[in-house]
Amino acid sequence: MYDLIIIGAGPAGLTAAIYAVRYGLNTLVIEKNVIPGQIATVTTIENYPGFTSISGMELMQKFKEHAEGAGATIQNNNVISVKEEQGKKVITTDDGGFETRAVILATGANPRKLGVEGEERLLTKGVSYCATCDGPLYGDLKVIVVGGGDSAMTDALVLSGIAKKVYVVHRRNELRACSILQERVSKKENISFIWDTVIQEIQGDELVEKVVLKNLNTGEITDMAIDGVFIYVGIDPNTSMVDTNKTENGFIVTDEQMESSVKGIFAAGDCRRTSVWQVVTAVSDGALAAISAHEYIISLDLER
Amino acid sequence: MYDLIIIGAGPAGLTAAIYAVRYGLNTLVIEKNVIPGQIATVTTIENYPGFTSISGMELMQKFKEHAEGAGATIQNNNVISVKEEQGKKVITTDDGGFETRAVILATGANPRKLGVEGEERLLTKGVSYCATCDGPLYGDLKVIVVGGGDSAMTDALVLSGIAKKVYVVHRRNELRACSILQERVSKKENISFIWDTVIQEIQGDELVEKVVLKNLNTGEITDMAIDGVFIYVGIDPNTSMVDTNKTENGFIVTDEQMESSVKGIFAAGDCRRTSVWQVVTAVSDGALAAISAHEYIISLDLER
Repeated sequence: MYDLIIIGAGPAGLTAAIYAVRYGLNTLVIEKNVIPGQIATVTTIENYPGFTSISGMELMQKFKEHAEGAGATIQNNNVISVKEEQGKKVITTDDGGFETRAVILATGANPRKLGVEGEERLLTKGVSYCATCDGPLYGDLKVIVVGGGDSAMTDALVLSGIAKKVYVVHRRNELRACSILQERVSKKENISFIWDTVIQEIQGDELVEKVVLKNLNTGEITDMAIDGVFIYVGIDPNTSMVDTNKTENGFIVTDEQMESSVKGIFAAGDCRRTSVWQVVTAVSDGALAAISAHEYIISLDLER
Repeated sequence: MYDLIIIGAGPAGLTAAIYAVRYGLNTLVIEKNVIPGQIATVTTIENYPGFTSISGMELMQKFKEHAEGAGATIQNNNVISVKEEQGKKVITTDDGGFETRAVILATGANPRKLGVEGEERLLTKGVSYCATCDGPLYGDLKVIVVGGGDSAMTDALVLSGIAKKVYVVHRRNELRACSILQERVSKKENISFIWDTVIQEIQGDELVEKVVLKNLNTGEITDMAIDGVFIYVGIDPNTSMVDTNKTENGFIVTDEQMESSVKGIFAAGDCRRTSVWQVVTAVSDGALAAISAHEYIISLDLER
């Protein structure tokens, strides 16, 4: 039986592994993909301190070497379920089962795609899902923000301080965002709204050059020249394998020590309820989750 | 007038600077020391993901280059006071004053010293103030933990999972730590207690070899061979320059968004109330503080 199984080998999972191994815990990391998740798709990360500019792929390679060097074992496998059984946790995968005393879920989350032509091809070439990450590339340029919720408005405000002009393209004629955010964006002179409209296509050769817009009321199709498209139509956490308290969108609810509603099951990084999806917050979550898991395992020892 | 002044150029302050500059905020970092604080005294950091093993000095150099490369200005100066004046913040230094819209305190904290012979000379050579940081160096060795509070007992438990033997040396004959920690340490077979005793001297040539102990009841002096001495007799945050809600030990109380009891004054890293003093938690705090400061500054703009 393992002391700790960590599901997910992104920033949160690998940091948890580094800490857990250093505490002497018998630790296994299980990762679904050969190259872990969301972060590896990022061309350039410029806000993880210590690396002025690095690709997500490279950074994750460094994290992986670090964790393995510290003594962590990382296995490729797909976790189907995490269940509590008489004080221990049972993890079922595509390739057999594991028993462990504690579990850290670091399974990440994926931004929901628009699903339009050009979106995938131009990802990191003008298409982005994070203004805090990619906004600084758009100084003095024109960008679109797609969506009408809190994330869309928060990032529209971020972009309004960097870009020359921000257009919010929203499929309805009112925002879903909280009133304080609505008030703030409405007062920004360089933010304009394009209501009742969706993006039908993102076009460009090497970089985003324009979008094709469709007005849902009139059916009118128009082209619009643009330098960047920031998409906020939802984030889907990868949490279906576990049955803990979650938000309505599936994010795992934890306390400040990263413990979920089930004792001994912890969550860290993008899969837990948070308002910030950054590498720095994920590594902090991972460390805190490992510290908490270690304390939990010590408490189990004493119950014997 | 600056948008944001960050006090302290350790991990929290420099990360806040990277984020703030990327948000387009006019940002100044003020650091008291030529080489910033606590972290630079650490010989080897092995738990900041991405760097398998790096000195604190080197890591801070990388953070500094990163922040300056992003556009942050770092100035050497000693901050005497931070005051709220009619909606703006006024910072007084040894070398004049500054006005700013928001402030992030990232001034760090220093572990209290025993003040005995050998403590400073053998720092990082067997003397440590952090088991999570340095514990893994003591696999199969014997260590002393000095202190009787929560930090001492938490780290005694960490060390009991790594080292062969842990002696808790405490000046009283009972612990101050909470009962659950007391219960846990009392059940660990490789933890023993040396009551009513203080360390008078730490000896060793290149590395810690032994300590001189004094029993406060009998006055008896004894030598004891030991490989490591972990000291937990208090932590002093550098927060005297600001008047916000603090804990009885002087740590700044913040909410989860790093805001202090004074609007527009934020705190990040070791100087705020937390239970974990790690580089990964400091960088996360720094990013969150910058995000919150940015939101605060946007809200000020709209009040005009």
